[in-house]
Amino acid sequence: MDRRRILLIIFDGLGDRPVTELGHKTPLEAAPKPNLDWFAANGMNGLLDPIGPGVRPGSDTSHLALFGYDPFEVYTGRGPFEAAGVGIELQKGDVAFRCNFATVDENLVLKDRRAGRIKEGTADLAASLNGMKLGRHRVLFKEGTEHRAVLVLRGKGLSARVSDTDPHEEGQKIAEAKPLNGKGKATAKLLNAFTRKAYEILKAHPVHAKRVKNGLPPANMVVCRGGGVAPDLVPVREKYGLKAAGIAGVALIKGMFRATGMDVLDVKGATGGLDTDMLAKAEAALLALTTYDLVVVNVKAADLCGHDGKASEKIRVVERMDQMMGHLRAHLPQDVIVAITADHSTPCAIKDHSGDPVPLTIFGEGIRVDEVPHFDERSVAKGSLGCVVGRDLMPILLNQANRTEKFGA
Amino acid sequence: MDRRRILLIIFDGLGDRPVTELGHKTPLEAAPKPNLDWFAANGMNGLLDPIGPGVRPGSDTSHLALFGYDPFEVYTGRGPFEAAGVGIELQKGDVAFRCNFATVDENLVLKDRRAGRIKEGTADLAASLNGMKLGRHRVLFKEGTEHRAVLVLRGKGLSARVSDTDPHEEGQKIAEAKPLNGKGKATAKLLNAFTRKAYEILKAHPVHAKRVKNGLPPANMVVCRGGGVAPDLVPVREKYGLKAAGIAGVALIKGMFRATGMDVLDVKGATGGLDTDMLAKAEAALLALTTYDLVVVNVKAADLCGHDGKASEKIRVVERMDQMMGHLRAHLPQDVIVAITADHSTPCAIKDHSGDPVPLTIFGEGIRVDEVPHFDERSVAKGSLGCVVGRDLMPILLNQANRTEKFGA
Repeated sequence: MDRRRILLIIFDGLGDRPVTELGHKTPLEAAPKPNLDWFAANGMNGLLDPIGPGVRPGSDTSHLALFGYDPFEVYTGRGPFEAAGVGIELQKGDVAFRCNFATVDENLVLKDRRAGRIKEGTADLAASLNGMKLGRHRVLFKEGTEHRAVLVLRGKGLSARVSDTDPHEEGQKIAEAKPLNGKGKATAKLLNAFTRKAYEILKAHPVHAKRVKNGLPPANMVVCRGGGVAPDLVPVREKYGLKAAGIAGVALIKGMFRATGMDVLDVKGATGGLDTDMLAKAEAALLALTTYDLVVVNVKAADLCGHDGKASEKIRVVERMDQMMGHLRAHLPQDVIVAITADHSTPCAIKDHSGDPVPLTIFGEGIRVDEVPHFDERSVAKGSLGCVVGRDLMPILLNQANRTEKFGA
Repeated sequence: MDRRRILLIIFDGLGDRPVTELGHKTPLEAAPKPNLDWFAANGMNGLLDPIGPGVRPGSDTSHLALFGYDPFEVYTGRGPFEAAGVGIELQKGDVAFRCNFATVDENLVLKDRRAGRIKEGTADLAASLNGMKLGRHRVLFKEGTEHRAVLVLRGKGLSARVSDTDPHEEGQKIAEAKPLNGKGKATAKLLNAFTRKAYEILKAHPVHAKRVKNGLPPANMVVCRGGGVAPDLVPVREKYGLKAAGIAGVALIKGMFRATGMDVLDVKGATGGLDTDMLAKAEAALLALTTYDLVVVNVKAADLCGHDGKASEKIRVVERMDQMMGHLRAHLPQDVIVAITADHSTPCAIKDHSGDPVPLTIFGEGIRVDEVPHFDERSVAKGSLGCVVGRDLMPILLNQANRTEKFGA
């Protein structure tokens, strides 16, 4: 039985709902996409509910499900995956938060939730907080892209059951972290202590002084949200016997790769933005397939258009995705099983993730090709895969790659 | 509400993948099969994942699922079903193994894993081992077809968590049974003691002397594999209120029937091989339907062709299956619900079971007939049953037979 390699392509936020201005087509239906259609026409197709029917997934919970983990069991918050994304090695019991550098006034009222989307000096700011001691607990702090950062609290007896210090709206005072149940009491206290100390340190920081001189809002505060416990995930190598690697522009998705034991491949030009170099990602994926059993590629661009409600821009992104698929189509080795799907829908009409299912195409030598001609939300619904949930994807791909263990005899 | 009877026909290993030499059709798609198509055209159709999407089923785990049991809960190994198949009445706590009579040299190196596919004298050989005492534990041993046999260890404190003594490859020494966790320690010791004693008894057995004189390899050893604990299954009569019977050629499937409380009907000419008399099975099923509520028929032949990788032979088997269905079609009473499916795919390209779903057709008076014209892997994917899993089959059939209890009021 010839074992095959697997290429899993996740077009972030690709699914959509019909758009009136597009003649009641979805952006994916409206876009010319000969290569995506070719994969659908020569593959098996279906609809995929990343978490379950009607469930609105986050990118984090959805990627967990697509990699075969049960998010209801292992997911407590986004923080740990952001932490893994910026390269913090988590230990069991760590609690991690997503943070923003922010601007507050002397009454701790939020003036700018992103400190003017600060770019310069964040490494220095983060370094000034990293290593802070709070009694017997320790702080790890690391900057992400722009105003983003990650806080990790390390020590005994921590819990993720605490509310955010991020008030989420400007004009509001920094929120006091509160325990969400009895267990979160000590952690809430620590988080509040961190927030006070961070303000004292940051407001006196030289980076801040320089910004104010240039008329920019000072990054004198840190707001935290999405606290979660570092999950204890069985690595994909152990779970499936797969040597796996991931390609993504954004830190969160890189964190999903690291947390599940995949190598993170850095690709020049893979930004996670609209300007991302999709062809470079395709090239990197083809190269990775020479040494890895499973290669996952995340392309974020379609999601951004959905969040901005820009349907025509989403069409242009689909056209670029299609060029990427054309490059893969031209250079793909014969023994690779390709899956093309999304982590969730981000309908332009909603400007956020929705629980609408996403298209799924599986392509490869010798599979049961069905009669679906197009890769879009409604065409694939007639495919032979029917409706599957995210957690079924890996078993289905492993079967097509001839890599599953027999259950029974 | 008129209660109906149910005829469940399981074509073992029938599902396949497209075969290049068949113009990218599966054997089932390529075969002329007017009767199977007639049932599909006049029935409801769908795809069935016996255990779950992508999961590669054994015949044992799959039959458990098709009968409505959760194999993840009740299945520990194949041994107990083989034991039931040869007619050993298992008791709670028994651990059973599948065995081969084999040939070893004086260093216990495996020379012939099937002792020249020994046929004669196996009942005598088995009798010489049956009843053996190992301390406080007792041995039950019974021959199966040809070189096959079953070992049951009976007594307190046994576990199925032991490794095989079967080295699975000739030229290897008989393996020492080892505990797979702490619980298996005592059982591994017993299994090794049995193996040593069996060798001493068998090498001195008169059957053996006669074989050597005729230039045949002596059956001087027993190798064991697939240890499992006798599962405590609620009989189908209790579970569904059905008086049930099964028809099959092979011992394992007969064991599945017995273990789930079905009567095993012996049919002359039902061999479990390619030469099996399918019309005799159809006749026996029709007769059984006069006294039973549920009749299950297993036809093994298609699976054998898949394991051998013989696509054109699989087509000829489908043609014979179709004649069997023609006989049923001509003589079927009106109040019978017929389900036609498989326990798993055995693609000729894989030569083993795969996790690809199998076709399912349900036929009967007054059901919601859909527009599927053919009984094959891709045609049924467009049917009204969609994708179902094995464990859903019995509830669906019981509903069509007007035999389900209302849940709620």
